[in-house]
Amino acid sequence: MGKNLTKRNEDYSKWYNELVVKADLAENSGVRGMMVIKPYGFAIWEKMQAELDRMFKETGHQNAYFPLLIPKSYFSKEASHVDGFAKECAVVTHYRLKNDENGKIVVDEKAKLEEELIVRPTSETIIWDTYKKWIQSYRDLPLLINQWANVVRWEMRTRLFLRTSEFLWQEGHTAHATKSEAITEAELMQRVYADFAENFMAMPVIKGTKTDSERFAGALETYTIEALMQDGKALQAGTSHFLGQNFAKAFDVKFASKEGKKEYVWATSWGVSTRLMGALIMTHSDDLGLVLPPKLAPIQVVIIPIYKGEEQLNSISEKIQPIIEGLREKGITVKFDNRDTHKPGWKFAEYELKGVPLRIAIGPRDIENETVELARRDTLTKEIIKQDELVDVVDKLLVEIQESLLHKAMEFRNNHVTKADTFDEFKQILENKGGFVSAHWDGTEETEEKIKQLTKATIRCIPLDNDIKEGSCVLSGKPSQRRVLFAKAY
Amino acid sequence: MGKNLTKRNEDYSKWYNELVVKADLAENSGVRGMMVIKPYGFAIWEKMQAELDRMFKETGHQNAYFPLLIPKSYFSKEASHVDGFAKECAVVTHYRLKNDENGKIVVDEKAKLEEELIVRPTSETIIWDTYKKWIQSYRDLPLLINQWANVVRWEMRTRLFLRTSEFLWQEGHTAHATKSEAITEAELMQRVYADFAENFMAMPVIKGTKTDSERFAGALETYTIEALMQDGKALQAGTSHFLGQNFAKAFDVKFASKEGKKEYVWATSWGVSTRLMGALIMTHSDDLGLVLPPKLAPIQVVIIPIYKGEEQLNSISEKIQPIIEGLREKGITVKFDNRDTHKPGWKFAEYELKGVPLRIAIGPRDIENETVELARRDTLTKEIIKQDELVDVVDKLLVEIQESLLHKAMEFRNNHVTKADTFDEFKQILENKGGFVSAHWDGTEETEEKIKQLTKATIRCIPLDNDIKEGSCVLSGKPSQRRVLFAKAY
Repeated sequence: MGKNLTKRNEDYSKWYNELVVKADLAENSGVRGMMVIKPYGFAIWEKMQAELDRMFKETGHQNAYFPLLIPKSYFSKEASHVDGFAKECAVVTHYRLKNDENGKIVVDEKAKLEEELIVRPTSETIIWDTYKKWIQSYRDLPLLINQWANVVRWEMRTRLFLRTSEFLWQEGHTAHATKSEAITEAELMQRVYADFAENFMAMPVIKGTKTDSERFAGALETYTIEALMQDGKALQAGTSHFLGQNFAKAFDVKFASKEGKKEYVWATSWGVSTRLMGALIMTHSDDLGLVLPPKLAPIQVVIIPIYKGEEQLNSISEKIQPIIEGLREKGITVKFDNRDTHKPGWKFAEYELKGVPLRIAIGPRDIENETVELARRDTLTKEIIKQDELVDVVDKLLVEIQESLLHKAMEFRNNHVTKADTFDEFKQILENKGGFVSAHWDGTEETEEKIKQLTKATIRCIPLDNDIKEGSCVLSGKPSQRRVLFAKAY
Repeated sequence: MGKNLTKRNEDYSKWYNELVVKADLAENSGVRGMMVIKPYGFAIWEKMQAELDRMFKETGHQNAYFPLLIPKSYFSKEASHVDGFAKECAVVTHYRLKNDENGKIVVDEKAKLEEELIVRPTSETIIWDTYKKWIQSYRDLPLLINQWANVVRWEMRTRLFLRTSEFLWQEGHTAHATKSEAITEAELMQRVYADFAENFMAMPVIKGTKTDSERFAGALETYTIEALMQDGKALQAGTSHFLGQNFAKAFDVKFASKEGKKEYVWATSWGVSTRLMGALIMTHSDDLGLVLPPKLAPIQVVIIPIYKGEEQLNSISEKIQPIIEGLREKGITVKFDNRDTHKPGWKFAEYELKGVPLRIAIGPRDIENETVELARRDTLTKEIIKQDELVDVVDKLLVEIQESLLHKAMEFRNNHVTKADTFDEFKQILENKGGFVSAHWDGTEETEEKIKQLTKATIRCIPLDNDIKEGSCVLSGKPSQRRVLFAKAY
């Protein structure tokens, strides 16, 4: 069958765009650069949210909510932050519309705001303005808060999930009494993100830190998790920032220490967004459509009856009912698609497109033989299973698929971290093989920028688990302390 | 002890404002009219969300997400809708800031939008613009979608939770093939809201419909649930709208029926918001602070050790550990507050203020006697309980408190629905007793408006369970079909 997706090796970008729409994940809206997240896509995002939320709470964080609109002046308070964020943003200037003399609806010029409000691109400023009221003493610390929210960053070139003018995310904002505690928090949240990526999304990531030029505006250190997509491009999947005392100083947030001294508070912030949906899609999916890890699949098992006439359907339904109940008892999400509006073949293709991990087909002969046909979405393999073994087989297989997807993605990623010792090698790898290039870099922004201009590759991260071994910069030949990872990136 | 709250009978409004802030529910932000929902308040909202979300899904709805910003022209498409919503709103006119010659950050006039974008006050327009793409055939119906989102309605006079320029809510938007199916849906969601209000918030509500003048802009019928606050004022707690074909016509959404005819789709929308937090507070709380129904309490049981020195604390901790585990096994949320930074008396007052349903105090004598002191927040009664009976007692008591709160609120509400047959009686009731006044009304907008001007009371609803009995309008004396409920309202 197939749903006529463009093939990945024909046009990866087109394949992605088509898949997102055809699998009912998201689509462009009538508002430039803003997407509609469709129910099936949103169900996956909800599963991500639920798991992340659980992990945040387990590590001591609480949720709260801060205003959507932020006074313009707040952004000016932290010098590097304003350059990074306040520029491409949605600006609210008026608070009323009216009918003009022709009955047309127009902005009421009398309702102009004294100070413009910015639709939040990120919430450090409004949150630290609030923390000033919440933090007086060391007893108020640490303050460990997370917010689930929508943010707007005006983008000229957008792509569903990967880069949209509005996106959904969570932003953690924490305040600490000491520098080392804040750094520990930033590192912890990087590990939480990496854990989530690997154990729920089945997406291996490399943990590292960002260079000066790639760092979050206002941070002293940005910890990142970097994933590799099937087309050999890297994708920054989550970041955690050590903000030093920058925001505490900008918003004058001090606390009385145990010794009674007034000190500025230390800060972190960290976030992941609906961009993870793009990462999930591009890590596992194939030319037939989405491939979902069972832990994030809204439907884990679909059952499709193959029948002629109501009588056959009834006998299938009867047989399948205890199996459905058995699966649900194990916490498995099952859909029995007995719609008569579509043929089995259409349904097979539909659930392949939607990435349902396991498909059970059951027809009249299966009823006779007490069997079903069980198909794996990830390997596209099928086998005949005895009905009385089915619940156990499915339960084990879902675990196996989850592991297998991680394993496969890990292998692909590991095969795409390539050392380059000359700039020729460096370019060759990027052109022919793609993926991460592990190379020495002299540590200057100048070289980083030159390499970017020559190859479009940027330094994705300085990996945490890298051995420190001296060498010479792949471009300048100057001394280098360690290899860093370059890649073309989303 | 007490946390020096203003008493309700001194100044109800001040009591409310103080309580919201002191109990750590919410506070005003630096942005006019917009609140910060603090972690404790947000934890209650999360419990509301989780339960409502479960109820929506059980009734067949799916979540999705639509853009925050809506082109101005969308609002003009449905004539009555634009008057109701597009007027007092946040208008985005530009998409960039820049530094001026003095380095000050200003709006970049070159980045003016061709068409202004409105921060959504409600999402009918953008959603029906999307549904046009999703609905072709009767097979695509019903479409049962819900969105959890933030919305902005510019308000001049704001109050935490009750009326804020930004608030959080859910908005359901459904599409149906027939009128009767849409009406059934609107009625169903009114019942879901009433069920939630009574069984989770322990807040009795009256189900009814709105008059023409109080109806949602764009609806043919608005179904409402109306609650009564302790000060005798009514609060509209949730609404569900039958929208007819208004939005389908405005956005040209037609479907091919089974018979192959092209017909306009029938619609509903329905929503509740963080306003419910205000309703919850004003239904149950007292002069000592918040009173929370156990089903919505972020902490259901707090345990406070009373001790001198580490040794006593250790022996209390040891005794209490199996009790904590026993409670958690029953799914009860327990906090053991062993902080040494605050005295027991301070803690008692703190958890009273925060409305924790049950407090367990345990001191050295309790260790000897194998007892604890158990205090109920709602009745402020205390009793001595044997430690080995504690888990069962707590488990039962939480159910009893939930029921008792509903019962108490129900009694208060029932005592505050008063019949008036003359306008003098009507005014007397409103002035002296408050609550709902059940009175005949001649059905005209003119009389409704006159009564509002004379008494500040509005028609809260035409109750569903009202007997239809003819009479004469309490103001005009003209014939009336039935009594309706008037009240002063939030």
